[in-house]
Amino acid sequence: MSDGRSRTSLEVPALIARKRDGGELTSDELRELLTAYLADEVDDAQIAALLMAGVIRGFTDAEAIALTEVLVASGETVDLSGLRGPTVDKHSTGGVGDTTTFVVGPLLAAAGCQVAKLSGRGLGHTGGTLDKLESIPGFRVDLSAAELREQVESIGLAVAAATQDLVPADKRLYALRDVTGTVASPALIASSVMSKKIAGGAQHVLLDVKTGDGAFVPDPAAATELAELCTQIGLAHDRRTGAIVSDMSQPLGDGVGNALEVAVAVEVLRGERHDALRELSLTLAAATLELTGVDATTARQRCDTLLDDGHALERFREFVVAQGGDPTVADAPWDVLPVAPVIRTWQPGAGVVSAMACRRLGELAGALGAGRQRADDAVDAAVGLEVLVRIGDELTADQPAVRIHARSDADVERLLAELPAAVSVGSSPVTPPPLVYARVGLED
Amino acid sequence: MSDGRSRTSLEVPALIARKRDGGELTSDELRELLTAYLADEVDDAQIAALLMAGVIRGFTDAEAIALTEVLVASGETVDLSGLRGPTVDKHSTGGVGDTTTFVVGPLLAAAGCQVAKLSGRGLGHTGGTLDKLESIPGFRVDLSAAELREQVESIGLAVAAATQDLVPADKRLYALRDVTGTVASPALIASSVMSKKIAGGAQHVLLDVKTGDGAFVPDPAAATELAELCTQIGLAHDRRTGAIVSDMSQPLGDGVGNALEVAVAVEVLRGERHDALRELSLTLAAATLELTGVDATTARQRCDTLLDDGHALERFREFVVAQGGDPTVADAPWDVLPVAPVIRTWQPGAGVVSAMACRRLGELAGALGAGRQRADDAVDAAVGLEVLVRIGDELTADQPAVRIHARSDADVERLLAELPAAVSVGSSPVTPPPLVYARVGLED
Repeated sequence: MSDGRSRTSLEVPALIARKRDGGELTSDELRELLTAYLADEVDDAQIAALLMAGVIRGFTDAEAIALTEVLVASGETVDLSGLRGPTVDKHSTGGVGDTTTFVVGPLLAAAGCQVAKLSGRGLGHTGGTLDKLESIPGFRVDLSAAELREQVESIGLAVAAATQDLVPADKRLYALRDVTGTVASPALIASSVMSKKIAGGAQHVLLDVKTGDGAFVPDPAAATELAELCTQIGLAHDRRTGAIVSDMSQPLGDGVGNALEVAVAVEVLRGERHDALRELSLTLAAATLELTGVDATTARQRCDTLLDDGHALERFREFVVAQGGDPTVADAPWDVLPVAPVIRTWQPGAGVVSAMACRRLGELAGALGAGRQRADDAVDAAVGLEVLVRIGDELTADQPAVRIHARSDADVERLLAELPAAVSVGSSPVTPPPLVYARVGLED
Repeated sequence: MSDGRSRTSLEVPALIARKRDGGELTSDELRELLTAYLADEVDDAQIAALLMAGVIRGFTDAEAIALTEVLVASGETVDLSGLRGPTVDKHSTGGVGDTTTFVVGPLLAAAGCQVAKLSGRGLGHTGGTLDKLESIPGFRVDLSAAELREQVESIGLAVAAATQDLVPADKRLYALRDVTGTVASPALIASSVMSKKIAGGAQHVLLDVKTGDGAFVPDPAAATELAELCTQIGLAHDRRTGAIVSDMSQPLGDGVGNALEVAVAVEVLRGERHDALRELSLTLAAATLELTGVDATTARQRCDTLLDDGHALERFREFVVAQGGDPTVADAPWDVLPVAPVIRTWQPGAGVVSAMACRRLGELAGALGAGRQRADDAVDAAVGLEVLVRIGDELTADQPAVRIHARSDADVERLLAELPAAVSVGSSPVTPPPLVYARVGLED
């Protein structure tokens, strides 16, 4: 059986054993090993054992950098060279009501940056960026590489579906990690994220690393370490990289769904919301500008101005038009976007919002039909939750805390039974959590 | 990909993650998981990840016991019930010049025990028990289950090749461990060893756990722990189980080869050698008798007598005859067994033998042709080494330390160049290592 498994000159079991015993693999060894794996010369089982050893013993930064390099080299890369402004990318590690892209993208484009964003659909409580955009009538995301580049040159912003040829090794490794209990490794997460950013071609990469109950990495210190590792990897690959570690102990924006998230983002762009979504979007956009060489104060002022004077909204409208969507979404999102048949509010009663089960709120939106559990599931654009309160808010007796957008009364009833466990209301005052925990690779 | 991997209702990634985080799997979970694996409903990669997590975090005794149970249940078991005496098995974890079976088996048969031994060929510096026996002209090891039982009923001793149907899951798991760096786990080693002993049908199992440079477990404390775990597993499966932890910092018998090992064992049976091989064989045989209910002192006296009065030799002769071998091997082994074409001695010069690279001596015998590296390699019965000295021996200037039995002068020359690094000779007195480090599950 051994003969059938390893068809490379590498001493694979010895490399695995070294990692098992807490040692380090060299860049050359990792490159050879993973190249052989992708060529089917090393078995899934051997890589699974190596990954488990690394998850428990820890991979070094050098190993994470080498792994990223192999991942990038496994597929095609996007060439964004020769565009007129700095090429930038803003990437979130994922959260609930996390819809900053629709604000940050137009803001950065309005600031003269070139934003060519490749997204996936993925699995989760709500759809991915592509699904959310597709809730805009007519919007298409299947741009060719040439269309993507042309649109970025024209208006500074395009969002397209990533092809299967972008970092194919990451897909294969992730599928293996998913079934072998080896997802939870900072080095594996960081190399997965950064390989896609590097292959995406942008020279400036700003990461929004989420932390809290609704995030992949609940602990702020661990999230900061992940942000630092991602930044190290980016710098090692000549990308100007920085990160914001931001809170995900409650939904970021009021909307948790697909159309709902587009709608609240448009309201931020229209200056109608002064909420956490707006504040974090401005923080992320300004941090990205910093990476391009603008000082922090100027960057923030420029973003504030571009949002307040309507330039960002205008750029969003051009973006929607360029990708075939109905531009009136920028004027009256609630009129254009799909609406759920049943809408009902939930009032927890008087008190202070003391905590939220953030991940659970995402799951509840998913249960309404906003997300997908399998790759071929359809996403319902209209359903989801509006979370109208934040931790620390004092509620009156009749104040709505959540508005449910559902397909049926039965779905609403199910949600009403679940919400009291997801939004806790107490009697003592509560200090709200900070919105940003750390800045990495940026001015303090 | 996830869908294609796991075709069982078990939450396999969650079980793996629990082990990864240092938790324990229940017997039911382990049983379900491995049963599903053997039914190809769980992937190699998932089991490899679980094994790596267990190797690093450690498996509990309860897990080792449950694993053994699953392994035994994966195939056929030998039914030795209804035989007239106590059924016994003596098993060594493997070493260099470790040829006690040919002494202990006849001794125990002469003492009224029933010894039905199933052996493999395996890989290693010399052949396995079967290969060694086959160096006796005419000897056959392919006994059917009925022949095995009949021979044991008749003379108390039979040695046959284990079939593929005995613990097939162990073969599959071992092949996986071999290529994934997950061999070195006490629980995995113990469950592998004990599953075969339990399936072999003997009610009394005596393990000879080797320790030292030439053994699988070099550290005596770790070897003792392994012996204790094996004993726990045996007792949990209603086998009277005990263990001797014995030294493998130097070859046990003078012979390191196939015919050479048979020859020195016959010399012990003939009362012509009073060496470590004789002493350990008597210790092991007496310990096995202890497991059947004989007190330690009586057991040892009985073994001494049966060896000294020729009963054990006589039983060996009957055993050879029963399996078709030339019985004159019991009278003049060096005349009957195959002889290598070139025999030469090595004299290191005057001094005290201070240390041996025991494993290396085994490898050097293997390099002469005594072992196999691949399952289909042939074993040369005649070649090998006689190691004529032991640690602590004072050598005169011309005293031979090793006699080389080789196919050619070139092979001899190669050996002569290697031996000085394998047998160290110094000027200071050296205390020899003990022969036995520990007794487990036996009278102190």
